Amino acid sequence: SPSQLRSNIKMREKTLTMETLNPQVKAVEYAVRGPIVLKAGEIERGLQQGQKHPFTEVIKANIGDAHAMGQKPITFLRQVVALCSFPELLESPSFPEDAKVRAGRILQGCGGQSLGSYSASQGVDCIRRDIAAYIKQRDKGVPADWDNVYLTTGASDGIVSILKMLVSGQGLSRCGVMIPIPQYPLYSAAIAEMDAVQINYYLDEDHCWALDINELHRAYLAAKEHCHPRVICIINPGNPTGQVQSKKCIEEVLHFAFEENLFVMADEVYQDNVYSTDCQFHSFKKVLYEMGPEYFNTVELASFHSTSKGYSGECGFRGGYMEVLNLDPEVKAQLVKLLSVRLCPPVSGQAAMDVIVNPPLPHEPSYPQFHEEKSTILGALAEKARMTEHILNAVPGIKCNPVQGAMYAFPSIFIPPRAVEEAKALGMPPDMLYCLRLLEDTGICIVPGSGFGQREGTHHFRMTILPSMEKLKVLLEKLRDFHIKFLKKYSSLEELER
Amino acid sequence: SPSQLRSNIKMREKTLTMETLNPQVKAVEYAVRGPIVLKAGEIERGLQQGQKHPFTEVIKANIGDAHAMGQKPITFLRQVVALCSFPELLESPSFPEDAKVRAGRILQGCGGQSLGSYSASQGVDCIRRDIAAYIKQRDKGVPADWDNVYLTTGASDGIVSILKMLVSGQGLSRCGVMIPIPQYPLYSAAIAEMDAVQINYYLDEDHCWALDINELHRAYLAAKEHCHPRVICIINPGNPTGQVQSKKCIEEVLHFAFEENLFVMADEVYQDNVYSTDCQFHSFKKVLYEMGPEYFNTVELASFHSTSKGYSGECGFRGGYMEVLNLDPEVKAQLVKLLSVRLCPPVSGQAAMDVIVNPPLPHEPSYPQFHEEKSTILGALAEKARMTEHILNAVPGIKCNPVQGAMYAFPSIFIPPRAVEEAKALGMPPDMLYCLRLLEDTGICIVPGSGFGQREGTHHFRMTILPSMEKLKVLLEKLRDFHIKFLKKYSSLEELER
Repeated sequence: SPSQLRSNIKMREKTLTMETLNPQVKAVEYAVRGPIVLKAGEIERGLQQGQKHPFTEVIKANIGDAHAMGQKPITFLRQVVALCSFPELLESPSFPEDAKVRAGRILQGCGGQSLGSYSASQGVDCIRRDIAAYIKQRDKGVPADWDNVYLTTGASDGIVSILKMLVSGQGLSRCGVMIPIPQYPLYSAAIAEMDAVQINYYLDEDHCWALDINELHRAYLAAKEHCHPRVICIINPGNPTGQVQSKKCIEEVLHFAFEENLFVMADEVYQDNVYSTDCQFHSFKKVLYEMGPEYFNTVELASFHSTSKGYSGECGFRGGYMEVLNLDPEVKAQLVKLLSVRLCPPVSGQAAMDVIVNPPLPHEPSYPQFHEEKSTILGALAEKARMTEHILNAVPGIKCNPVQGAMYAFPSIFIPPRAVEEAKALGMPPDMLYCLRLLEDTGICIVPGSGFGQREGTHHFRMTILPSMEKLKVLLEKLRDFHIKFLKKYSSLEELER
Repeated sequence: SPSQLRSNIKMREKTLTMETLNPQVKAVEYAVRGPIVLKAGEIERGLQQGQKHPFTEVIKANIGDAHAMGQKPITFLRQVVALCSFPELLESPSFPEDAKVRAGRILQGCGGQSLGSYSASQGVDCIRRDIAAYIKQRDKGVPADWDNVYLTTGASDGIVSILKMLVSGQGLSRCGVMIPIPQYPLYSAAIAEMDAVQINYYLDEDHCWALDINELHRAYLAAKEHCHPRVICIINPGNPTGQVQSKKCIEEVLHFAFEENLFVMADEVYQDNVYSTDCQFHSFKKVLYEMGPEYFNTVELASFHSTSKGYSGECGFRGGYMEVLNLDPEVKAQLVKLLSVRLCPPVSGQAAMDVIVNPPLPHEPSYPQFHEEKSTILGALAEKARMTEHILNAVPGIKCNPVQGAMYAFPSIFIPPRAVEEAKALGMPPDMLYCLRLLEDTGICIVPGSGFGQREGTHHFRMTILPSMEKLKVLLEKLRDFHIKFLKKYSSLEELER
């Protein structure tokens, strides 16, 4: 009856409320797309609708999204993807032969020769073989078995899958996951979602964000009191910190993992993004190999790569892979089973990954253009890395380590005590207040260091070096002017004179 | 020292073993890619290497993978995706104008006008708008707000995300999820992985797999004794069961959900796959609307769609969307946060989804070809649905309900007691033994009913109707011959004479 219905309505509460929501979902934080970025979106929509701001555009330096910042796609990669998407183009004279050969080969590997078929859960066989060949070449001959290679939906998907396998236990045997601080917040988010224990090891800001083995020991021993550390995550080159690890440092980490029976997760998505001429990328796998079979045949290691970074910057394709060493065979079957529930990674992302590991060779027709595009992009990134460091270090109260690799600067910033107090009163971390004011004043969107983790009492922000040289220069100058104004506004006279 | 190292090696056990593996991962089962399918892959590789089998090819009727079974892509969809992937083609005279307009519009919605940029976590704005317009049109004017639309990585990703929000609680308040039996094993897998309580409600095989409201009440009341039922999942048209729900039945489910404060998850990925002329697809949303604002403004409903099924069958693109109604605004923000951790669904899959909701209109140049391709595919599916039912029902010991919709037949099969005993001795469900023997004898790969759930003591299998008419006919005839042989082999003389 209607009256009964009405009483039901009054009584009907929502099933899904903040009170009933999965508490592990509530615990997740993801600063790279957090409150500052949501606010930037609001302002952007406001600008489009004619709202007035002290600027005409929002510059998003919050996320490593190269194409959104104007970087052009690698022509060859897109040709191969277009050919795979619409195979009639294989007849077109406007596509180069080497692109056609690659597309034809990928399609041969797809069910019904179509990008529209599910691939195997681990990915298309021939792409996995290409990835193994790439890894072997990259690592100067270290053997790579394609059976250990899994295509993923971006690197994030692989990282979450491996963590999901590892997380178990309650109380003292609850799984502990060692992560660097500062970290890429995917790690803290996944750990929160899975209700594992986050074990922080702090990178050494005074030494270019290097990983200090003593700090690893400290963090491990402290964590052992209340959980069971089972995994160590390393990001190399570093995100958000931009350091490139030395071979010696990687050896120390691997030795430590060997001794303490830790599963090693090596996030190596920036392996092509090394700018400092005195740095070089060493894969964890190659270093493990060089430590001898005692290590190479025992340490469980997963390494992650992606189409989203490097010189291609193809984030939207959600391509990636992981190579997993020394996995117990039964566990491997469990991993495949777990991956099979989501059927397969996007096949066009797999195709994009294939081009990255199997680019045009010097004798092929597309090589000159490919080589030119690739070196232009990487050259510009190296230049922007240096410029960012220099301009930031010239600002009083900002201190920036060299951007040796990856795509970000993560400078420390001095925030005057009065600003710290104001932030406290507003219930936000001081560097969030800083980034918010910067956004409101200049339209520049960057992410507060608190979203990545930092030593108590220090403040940072992360910005990408991806805008074009001209835009990045303007951005850095605006940032400098804002910073000086911010210091003035919140500093007492004595502080200013000091 | 070397000797110390050696002793370490002996002591070093794997970190990740079957004993330490996350038990929730261990609990996951996914029959659609389970042991039978792994075995089929082995046999296939064996055939390629020249191994002898009583057949020359493996026919995979285990998974709804249309293109792998030879279905051709919709030309218009692939043209749009190719144009988006390689925008230089926008200048090419060989692409139709309407495809160019759509591609141009999608690219306008992408950062830097590139498919390689991350989209917003919810998806590209203009695609979300197109989806809302499609839903409104499909539902004869029922309002659809694009703010409620979320692009996903296939439908599976959306289903898992919503479940993840809902699952919480321990003991008596542990979250219960009502699912149909038989079900699509994504549901049981996700429930196992999240450690929620699976509440089975049985579909009525004697009435074309209809959903019986009394059975819902029974399952709900029984479950309330030991958990807190919070969600009801419905698959319509049914997978694996192929039934299309009547409007009355949907009303009953929605009324029940309203009364019992359940969140409704409507898996409607087969909404374009209705073959029986006396059936019609009714969206849960439209029915909810017609029940009046008391319902439409309160019941929390998520509906899922996908690029993988329908007439396009684009599984590899991993495109999909969900529309979520009556979500608490704070919870909505939490959902966006959760989705943002995986950054965005693949943008080419989003583009494919856009074409499906925004196909060529009658006045546009691509319409004739599009219309022809679409109706050929759907017409053939309808014919194959009827043929499958008829051939199967002519086999003694097989009983198949009409395949009203979706892409599968799920017949019940009589398995002789001696075969049941043999299966028991081998530690496998009887219908797995059946499917295994079928595979070994004929190369036909189908999935045992036990992987989907079925009433105790009954046996089934799921097969797709996707092979070409010719192949499907051969498959069904081989299946019939195998079945008769199987019955003979395992039946006693008396049984055969009965």
